[in-house]
Amino acid sequence: MRPWDGIISDEEQRAYRAAGFGRPSGVGKRPALLIIDVQYRTAGTTPMPFFEAVKEFPTSCGEVAWKAIDNIRLLVDEFRQRGWPVLYPHVAPKNQHEGGRLAEKVPAIMNIAANGYDFVREIAPRPGDVLLPKKHPSAFFATALTSHLIDLQADTLVVTGCSTSGCVRASVVDAFALNFKVLVPQDAVYDRSHVSHAVNLFDMSEKYADVAPTAEITETLRKI
Amino acid sequence: MRPWDGIISDEEQRAYRAAGFGRPSGVGKRPALLIIDVQYRTAGTTPMPFFEAVKEFPTSCGEVAWKAIDNIRLLVDEFRQRGWPVLYPHVAPKNQHEGGRLAEKVPAIMNIAANGYDFVREIAPRPGDVLLPKKHPSAFFATALTSHLIDLQADTLVVTGCSTSGCVRASVVDAFALNFKVLVPQDAVYDRSHVSHAVNLFDMSEKYADVAPTAEITETLRKI
Amino acid sequence: MRPWDGIISDEEQRAYRAAGFGRPSGVGKRPALLIIDVQYRTAGTTPMPFFEAVKEFPTSCGEVAWKAIDNIRLLVDEFRQRGWPVLYPHVAPKNQHEGGRLAEKVPAIMNIAANGYDFVREIAPRPGDVLLPKKHPSAFFATALTSHLIDLQADTLVVTGCSTSGCVRASVVDAFALNFKVLVPQDAVYDRSHVSHAVNLFDMSEKYADVAPTAEITETLRKI
Amino acid sequence: MRPWDGIISDEEQRAYRAAGFGRPSGVGKRPALLIIDVQYRTAGTTPMPFFEAVKEFPTSCGEVAWKAIDNIRLLVDEFRQRGWPVLYPHVAPKNQHEGGRLAEKVPAIMNIAANGYDFVREIAPRPGDVLLPKKHPSAFFATALTSHLIDLQADTLVVTGCSTSGCVRASVVDAFALNFKVLVPQDAVYDRSHVSHAVNLFDMSEKYADVAPTAEITETLRKI
Repeated sequence: MRPWDGIISDEEQRAYRAAGFGRPSGVGKRPALLIIDVQYRTAGTTPMPFFEAVKEFPTSCGEVAWKAIDNIRLLVDEFRQRGWPVLYPHVAPKNQHEGGRLAEKVPAIMNIAANGYDFVREIAPRPGDVLLPKKHPSAFFATALTSHLIDLQADTLVVTGCSTSGCVRASVVDAFALNFKVLVPQDAVYDRSHVSHAVNLFDMSEKYADVAPTAEITETLRKI
Repeated sequence: MRPWDGIISDEEQRAYRAAGFGRPSGVGKRPALLIIDVQYRTAGTTPMPFFEAVKEFPTSCGEVAWKAIDNIRLLVDEFRQRGWPVLYPHVAPKNQHEGGRLAEKVPAIMNIAANGYDFVREIAPRPGDVLLPKKHPSAFFATALTSHLIDLQADTLVVTGCSTSGCVRASVVDAFALNFKVLVPQDAVYDRSHVSHAVNLFDMSEKYADVAPTAEITETLRKI
Repeated sequence: MRPWDGIISDEEQRAYRAAGFGRPSGVGKRPALLIIDVQYRTAGTTPMPFFEAVKEFPTSCGEVAWKAIDNIRLLVDEFRQRGWPVLYPHVAPKNQHEGGRLAEKVPAIMNIAANGYDFVREIAPRPGDVLLPKKHPSAFFATALTSHLIDLQADTLVVTGCSTSGCVRASVVDAFALNFKVLVPQDAVYDRSHVSHAVNLFDMSEKYADVAPTAEITETLRKI
Repeated sequence: MRPWDGIISDEEQRAYRAAGFGRPSGVGKRPALLIIDVQYRTAGTTPMPFFEAVKEFPTSCGEVAWKAIDNIRLLVDEFRQRGWPVLYPHVAPKNQHEGGRLAEKVPAIMNIAANGYDFVREIAPRPGDVLLPKKHPSAFFATALTSHLIDLQADTLVVTGCSTSGCVRASVVDAFALNFKVLVPQDAVYDRSHVSHAVNLFDMSEKYADVAPTAEITETLRKI
C-alpha cells in the first residue's frame, strides 16, 4: 500500500507507468537531513484534534504533526549517530510591512504568537546545526541552503517536516532541480489535508523523489 | 463547483477555511501570460485518448491537452490585442550526458522525438515573443524569466500550459515567492492525472494563486 | 574629471570607447535606494585614519567612509521626502561554524565585536524600512531583495555603501543582470583601497551602471 | 611579482594585510574547469593589436586573448588527462528584442557577426562537455551551472577565459558565495584593459579566490 492508493485511481497509476515516470533515484554517499518548519506553529504545543489546534495557531496541522515528529526523531538520532548534517529551514517571524503576496493569500499567517516560532523541543537543533530562517515556501528560496550543502558536499537530501503540500513540496522540487538525490519519508512529513498530503507524495514520487516509510529509508541509509 | 469539489472533502475544505487560507490576491496593472511547455510532446500531434497518446510521446497528456489549448488560445488573443507580453517557457531538447536526476526518475523523457519539441501551432510564438528554453520544472529555474519580467515591469502572471502538477505548479510557487500576483485559469492548464490536476489546483488556490475559469479571468483582465 | 582618470590611462579609456562600452542606462520611474553594509564595522565608530581604524574593526575603511556617509544622508533625505523606498542589505553577525569560504579567505571577518554590526546612526533605518541580513557579497544572494523590489515595482536602483570593490560591485552586477537600471553615486560608496575603488567605479560605469556624483544623481532623480 | 604590483601601491597592499584579507582557500578534491566566453568574439579570429581587433568584433580583446588561450590549453589538457570535467559557459547570440539593460550600456554588443559566437578552435568543447549558453555576466546567472556542479560533486573551480573584469569576476563572486573553492590562473584570463585586469585579479585574490600563474595552479592540481 502506498499512501495515495485509493486516492489516485489504479488507471491513473497505470497512466504514469505507461509514461515511464517514477523510477528510483537511489541514494548517494553524503546525506543531509532537512527538518522544515517543525515549530509549534505547525504542530501545536501539544497533540490536539485539528479544529482545536487551529485555535492555538491557525497554521497548526494538529495530531498528524506529532505522529510525524516521532519519525523525524528517529531520523535525527540516526543522522546524529553517523555524524551527518541536520539542517533546520524554518519560518522566520513576519514583519507586518513585508507580507507581499503571502499576506494577501493567508492573512492569518501574519499574526502568529511568538512562541509559535519556537522549534518543537523533541527535534530541536543543537549548537553547530545550520539554522535557515525563511519567508517563502522553498527552503532554497532566498536562503543560503545551496551554499551550505555545497560546503558540506552533500549529494542526498532526506526531507522531513511540513507541510507536505507547501514547504516540503516546494523544497523537494528545488532540490531535484539542483540535482540532489531526494528521499521523502512519507510518515515524517505532515499536512492539514490528508488528500493533498497523499497526492503531493504521489507527485513527488513520480517526478522528483523516492518516497518510502521512515523505516525503509533508514535501512537504505544504513547501507551507506 | 470548484475543480477539486468531491476530491478534497467538505471537511478538509472547512479546515482550510478555519485556518484562513485561500484569500484572493487579485490582479495588478501589468499582466504577462506564461505558456508553459505547450509543445507536441505534451499534447500529441492530434487529440488522442491517453493510452494511445503516450505511444506517440510518453510525455503526452492526450485529449485534455487540446481542451486546454482552446482556452490558452483565447488568452493569447486577449493578450495580443492589449499589447501585453506573452512568454514561452518550454522544454529544451535533452542531451544524453546532462540528464542528472531527471534521467533517473523519468528515463523515457530523455528520448522524445525531435518534432515533440515544436510548439503547438495553435498557440505558437510570434517574432518578438520571449522564448525561454528550460530543463527543470520551474520556468524560473536556470532561466532569465525574472529578468524579463522586471524589464517588462510585469506585476501579474497568468500561468497556463502543462503539467498542472509539474511545471505549472513549480512555476507558480516561484512566481508567488517573487511577489508576482498569480492567476491560474483552471481550464487552460492540463495534466495526465485528473486527481493530481484537481488537487494541485486546490493547493495553488489555497496558498499561491487565484484559480478560476478562463472566462472569469478574462473578464477580470478586461477591467485593467 | 572621472574618479578613474589618471588610473585608467587615456589609451585604455579610448579602447572602451572604440569597443562601444559605457553608454548611459538612464533612470526609470520608480527608484529604490540600497544602503549596503553601512555599519560601524565598515566605518568605525568615529572617523579615524585607516591604520588606526582597523584596530577597532579589521573591516573598517576609515575616514573615507564618513565622507561617503555625508552623501548617503543626502540621498536618504531625498528618498524619504519623495516617499521612495530605502532598503538596508547589511552584514549579519557570523556563526563560527558557518564560515565556508569566507572564513578561509578573511578569517578576521569572523570575529567582529557585536557593536560593529549596528547601523551607523546618521543613516540608520526607520520602522517600516526593509532590512536584509546577508552573509555573501551580493545583496541579492540568498536574500529576498528581488522579491521586495518586485513587490515595490522598483525599476531603478541607487546603490550606496561599501565596499565599492566588494558588496557594492557584486550587488550592481546582479541588479544589472536582473534588468534594473542602476545608478552608483561615486561619492556615496567607499572602499579601503583608493585604486580599487576607482577601477571598480570604472568597470561598473563601462558595463553595468551610470556612475556620477551624488549631486548629479539627485538632480536626475528630481526630474522623475 | 604579483600582477597588481605597481598598480595597487605598497601602502594599499599593507592596508589589506592589516585588515587580514587574502588568505589562501586552497584546493579540494574534485576540481572542475570553467572556460568562460572563449569565442572568436572576444579573441578575434587571429591575434591582432587591440585597435585592429575591435574592427573585426567590438568585443575583441586582441593579442592578450591568445596568450591566455595558450595557458587555457595547458589546463584543458591537464583536466582531460585526469578525467576531470570541463564546462563552457559562453555568450549566446543576442535577440534584438531581449537586450534589456545590456543593450543600453553596450549597444555594439547586440550586433556581433555570427562567427564571433564560435568557440576558439584551440580550446573548443568535445562531445560530452557541458555547454552553458548565457546572456548575463555571471556563468551562474540564469544557467544550470550550479545543478551541473552538484551533479558532478565538484568542490573546486578553476576559472579561465574572459573578461577578467566582466564575466570572470562575476562568476568568481558567485562561485565563492556558493562555497566552491576558486582558483584563478592569472595568465589564463584576459581583458581589454591591463589596469582593470590587474585590479580585478587583486580584488579576487583578496576576497574570493586563490590567484596564481597557470604553472603553479597546475602543480597544485597534480597533488590531488
